[in-house]
Amino acid sequence: MANKIPVGILGATGAVGQRFVQLLEHHPWFETTELAASDRSAGKAYQDATNWRQYTPIPDSLQTQVVKPCEPNLDCKIVFSGLDSSVAGEVEEAFAQAGYIVLSNSKNHRMDEDVPLLVPEINPEHLGLLKTQRQRRNWAGAIVTNPNCSTIGLVMALAPLHRAFGVKRVIVSTMQALSGAGYPGLSAIDMLGNVIPYIGGEEDKVETEPLKIMGAWQHDAIQFADCKISAHTNRVFVEDGHLETVSLELEKKATPEEVADVLANFSALPQELKLPTAPIPPIIVTAERDRPQPRFDRDAGKGMSAVVGRIRPCPVFDIRLVVLSHNTIRGAAGAAILNAEIMKAQGYLD
Amino acid sequence: MANKIPVGILGATGAVGQRFVQLLEHHPWFETTELAASDRSAGKAYQDATNWRQYTPIPDSLQTQVVKPCEPNLDCKIVFSGLDSSVAGEVEEAFAQAGYIVLSNSKNHRMDEDVPLLVPEINPEHLGLLKTQRQRRNWAGAIVTNPNCSTIGLVMALAPLHRAFGVKRVIVSTMQALSGAGYPGLSAIDMLGNVIPYIGGEEDKVETEPLKIMGAWQHDAIQFADCKISAHTNRVFVEDGHLETVSLELEKKATPEEVADVLANFSALPQELKLPTAPIPPIIVTAERDRPQPRFDRDAGKGMSAVVGRIRPCPVFDIRLVVLSHNTIRGAAGAAILNAEIMKAQGYLD
Amino acid sequence: MANKIPVGILGATGAVGQRFVQLLEHHPWFETTELAASDRSAGKAYQDATNWRQYTPIPDSLQTQVVKPCEPNLDCKIVFSGLDSSVAGEVEEAFAQAGYIVLSNSKNHRMDEDVPLLVPEINPEHLGLLKTQRQRRNWAGAIVTNPNCSTIGLVMALAPLHRAFGVKRVIVSTMQALSGAGYPGLSAIDMLGNVIPYIGGEEDKVETEPLKIMGAWQHDAIQFADCKISAHTNRVFVEDGHLETVSLELEKKATPEEVADVLANFSALPQELKLPTAPIPPIIVTAERDRPQPRFDRDAGKGMSAVVGRIRPCPVFDIRLVVLSHNTIRGAAGAAILNAEIMKAQGYLD
Amino acid sequence: MANKIPVGILGATGAVGQRFVQLLEHHPWFETTELAASDRSAGKAYQDATNWRQYTPIPDSLQTQVVKPCEPNLDCKIVFSGLDSSVAGEVEEAFAQAGYIVLSNSKNHRMDEDVPLLVPEINPEHLGLLKTQRQRRNWAGAIVTNPNCSTIGLVMALAPLHRAFGVKRVIVSTMQALSGAGYPGLSAIDMLGNVIPYIGGEEDKVETEPLKIMGAWQHDAIQFADCKISAHTNRVFVEDGHLETVSLELEKKATPEEVADVLANFSALPQELKLPTAPIPPIIVTAERDRPQPRFDRDAGKGMSAVVGRIRPCPVFDIRLVVLSHNTIRGAAGAAILNAEIMKAQGYLD
Repeated sequence: MANKIPVGILGATGAVGQRFVQLLEHHPWFETTELAASDRSAGKAYQDATNWRQYTPIPDSLQTQVVKPCEPNLDCKIVFSGLDSSVAGEVEEAFAQAGYIVLSNSKNHRMDEDVPLLVPEINPEHLGLLKTQRQRRNWAGAIVTNPNCSTIGLVMALAPLHRAFGVKRVIVSTMQALSGAGYPGLSAIDMLGNVIPYIGGEEDKVETEPLKIMGAWQHDAIQFADCKISAHTNRVFVEDGHLETVSLELEKKATPEEVADVLANFSALPQELKLPTAPIPPIIVTAERDRPQPRFDRDAGKGMSAVVGRIRPCPVFDIRLVVLSHNTIRGAAGAAILNAEIMKAQGYLD
Repeated sequence: MANKIPVGILGATGAVGQRFVQLLEHHPWFETTELAASDRSAGKAYQDATNWRQYTPIPDSLQTQVVKPCEPNLDCKIVFSGLDSSVAGEVEEAFAQAGYIVLSNSKNHRMDEDVPLLVPEINPEHLGLLKTQRQRRNWAGAIVTNPNCSTIGLVMALAPLHRAFGVKRVIVSTMQALSGAGYPGLSAIDMLGNVIPYIGGEEDKVETEPLKIMGAWQHDAIQFADCKISAHTNRVFVEDGHLETVSLELEKKATPEEVADVLANFSALPQELKLPTAPIPPIIVTAERDRPQPRFDRDAGKGMSAVVGRIRPCPVFDIRLVVLSHNTIRGAAGAAILNAEIMKAQGYLD
Repeated sequence: MANKIPVGILGATGAVGQRFVQLLEHHPWFETTELAASDRSAGKAYQDATNWRQYTPIPDSLQTQVVKPCEPNLDCKIVFSGLDSSVAGEVEEAFAQAGYIVLSNSKNHRMDEDVPLLVPEINPEHLGLLKTQRQRRNWAGAIVTNPNCSTIGLVMALAPLHRAFGVKRVIVSTMQALSGAGYPGLSAIDMLGNVIPYIGGEEDKVETEPLKIMGAWQHDAIQFADCKISAHTNRVFVEDGHLETVSLELEKKATPEEVADVLANFSALPQELKLPTAPIPPIIVTAERDRPQPRFDRDAGKGMSAVVGRIRPCPVFDIRLVVLSHNTIRGAAGAAILNAEIMKAQGYLD
Repeated sequence: MANKIPVGILGATGAVGQRFVQLLEHHPWFETTELAASDRSAGKAYQDATNWRQYTPIPDSLQTQVVKPCEPNLDCKIVFSGLDSSVAGEVEEAFAQAGYIVLSNSKNHRMDEDVPLLVPEINPEHLGLLKTQRQRRNWAGAIVTNPNCSTIGLVMALAPLHRAFGVKRVIVSTMQALSGAGYPGLSAIDMLGNVIPYIGGEEDKVETEPLKIMGAWQHDAIQFADCKISAHTNRVFVEDGHLETVSLELEKKATPEEVADVLANFSALPQELKLPTAPIPPIIVTAERDRPQPRFDRDAGKGMSAVVGRIRPCPVFDIRLVVLSHNTIRGAAGAAILNAEIMKAQGYLD
């Protein structure tokens, strides 16, 4: 393990933090050496501080490790942040200021002009923003964010189509898993035989984040994609995996077969670089008429692939499809880890 | 009870048939006197022939009534049909031919040019088709249909808006209840923590039925509404109540407040006539940000009202909203009963 | 309404408090005139203070009524308490001291030597304890309790059998509904496809409360029943209705038919007195091999009957059976109301 | 793969058959070379004949393999049978007659006097019955069975305790997963927010099979254990994993700590022999007060361990506990594979 890069996890006791711990356990490049969380947890052994909810056990090496407070004196240069947005803003800034590379899963800085909202398969060139970020903010470190868990599946399907055909307008309706609300999240008695057609703040994220992610990199800045998105977000009784029905208006007409081809053949820099967490392929196209389904397809590509099905003509727009992605892997912890991997591969962590 | 109109139920042992039995138990105008079902059930006492799944018990008077075969020699003039579409076509025609008024819940004849697809609040004048129907088919009786369970909520929200503002394009995504698939319907192990993004034949119904229902009555025929609909239909783990997210493009722009006003103030002939099953109001507009929800709102208006919420601007079209309706009451048995009521009120049953 | 007895509800904004409000709405004897809750709610309109989760709306007359603090200056003589056990002890005592009759649903005083743990069908004579209670505690009012929601179904099945055959030993395993844990209660993501084989403090209640309830009334005191109970309590993904599997050792042997007869023919003082909330019959015996089931049977007797099924020989003890009762009606608010009714009928409220 | 033993799967398209295919994919000793199923499936490619429901894909090598009829001309000597009990009896006999070793998961022959009902950790010596079986039936092959999915967890907990302390009487109440009913199994709408307190034929199996399994091997025959069991079996909304609450009367008194010690330290021949599918340890004792839970603990030991928790005194008998085991792995396919492994290790497959 001597040569692995030590990393810390902010918010290590929460739902996303636990996923970081789990996904990093056997990571070939990174090794979790620091666990940090709120003052309530700081000072306790990790196994006592966290209500562990993953299906694999806490890694042996971390069970009794003492949780530290979220202060920028951790013994590592890279931190993954699963902090709640109520505190992530300031804490992450403090770490960046102090020279840490912060891989953030929080919404606070995603739409900041000088912060990359990174999906390595789509916009790796947006890492160019870090130069501006450091200059403008006078930071030794940096903040790089990954998108919201309901944005990611959509934008993974949209981006290749936008490149190939131009996506003008999108209407999306989501059916989102319980784990997206953290732990304990929703009440069992509210969700029994029920759907809640509202998720606070979520629709705005789905409507704006893809425009930045698919934005062109011009003159050291991002030119937002010229595309309109309307999102309906709903909570359903599913453990993991956000399912989204999507209708697309294209600039250049395309048949369902052409759309399927573009998606199925999509590959990008993380796949070329063989990044450890990069799924191959990043997008799986299924021909079965009743797929993707959350329970059966969310783990595709170890939870890092988007699965697209039911590609068919739309009587109102041009194309309709269904997309699924794992909300706590590709939509949270796995995304941040892939971001760190591409940064490493491109020299940003040196 | 001497003065009540005797009615029969075709497919009385099935899920929709049971709902007919239940909803007609205390009906002020109709009395169930005949129960008919497949040959497998014919000859048995109703309580032995049916696997009763309603929350109220089988009406005393029908428990031991002998189920008859679905042949047009029942002792009544009006039949409610909950037959499966695999057999409904021929059986319902045989009854109509033999002089029965058939209130059909099946898809078989819904889109026939000379068959009303009736929603009494929207298109009572379409009953005018019966004249043509009888002439053309040389029937003593008639067939009148109600829409699919996923069409009804949508069209109840659309029709008043179409009248007020003109609806040009609609993209709808449904989250439909288990009971829509009949009994036993879906497998529990398929639906545990899952969503199935496909319902066979459903999207076509949602895309075409509203155009007929909202069609203008001109020269003894229906002029289909000039409107395009795109539907994504999904099955979720909910007992009753189909929830739909809807984006609308309007001819004449309208604010969310104007849309809410039109829907909340909507009233129509069934309400004027005080038909026993007509809900007041037919459309309930809720201002709570996370409603309607299937479990809490499906029984509004005894399951006959549509509940509309989250009326807000759509960044792609003009207006977005969520609509819920009870799929086995307003979307099936209750709809057919309301159809019979307006026919009675307008002299079609004399 | 002039002649109705005014009553107050303590903890009116909680889950049990809401049930009190709902069940008392059309009560022929009582009228809710006072709503009291924690300081967080006091001063607010009821509809703003409570997150209403019942299927019927808040009664019109109470929607804007101002919630008061739980202090013994309410304008009524009788209070129903749905307070959480963390506060119920002191608050209820303060009310009793101040002259109020407190119908308590909390565990705090259930096992007190001088407090009736009342099930009107089983031990109405235990109200005789009130004399001692008032003397000993120097109270103008009184506290009367109802059993835990998992005790009630069991004891309703046990008591008639204890009288007829003598019950020596009982092993019971429960499958309890979510609503028993209050609101918001359990996490949806914990309960998805899961069972939790532990409910804090519950097994002790099930093992001890029936012994007091079935206790003999001798010399102004309760002689606990000589019976041993072992309880396994489990939480399952059910909205309402606690299901319990029970094995019984009897002193005097009895066949399943004899047991069924005793239960099906059981009737008691509340039924004789025709108390408004008394179910007829109090125990429903079902012969269907796969019943009772929570969703289909919990509302028997408007939620006040216990439903017993699968009465059969036990290879280890003598008799086995399954019992279901509605945990928030017969197991909470409905129980307390029935207690008040029998007190009224017997002159304890004069 | 040259040295692996070729095996066939009877009923390969069903739920248990799929589990055999999945669990054998990377088996170090066995290789699936023959797939057999009903005439409906015979002649089709496996991927077309089966509605694959496992989370891992069909092994590449078997996707297009042609399914054969269940006739004893398969090219292997060992067959695993996941056949439904309606056909298993005759088919399995035909195979045994024809010289095949049949590892059967069906109930048909479990209680036959000359058929081992094998749990390798408990009664490997019962394989001695095969000598009698072959003589008496004049078979070249043999049938070896594994217990019912609800028996296995119970008997794994009972057997070590029976040896250590003597188990006299047992009352068990199960909460069984959906997958135990095969596919499609139960209706989703029946199971929504519900428990079904009845599983046809199940209680008899739980009450009798353990007595044979724990039976002493004397004079080439099994002396059934002298123990009485009473079972209540219930179906709950859980995907996999049968949970059971158990009360035990012991001959020799023991403390919860002593019971926990015996269970936690239990190890047996399969563990000594390091059989590929033998879990280490076979029984996991958990000290967490609310475990085992089906979703979090069923995969312990790759689904082959039983997990025991809540060991505590029983006020009626001596000891109470909760046991969980994976019903389609340890309770079906995995059990049969472990049976084959111990037979191989002991020379029964030579």
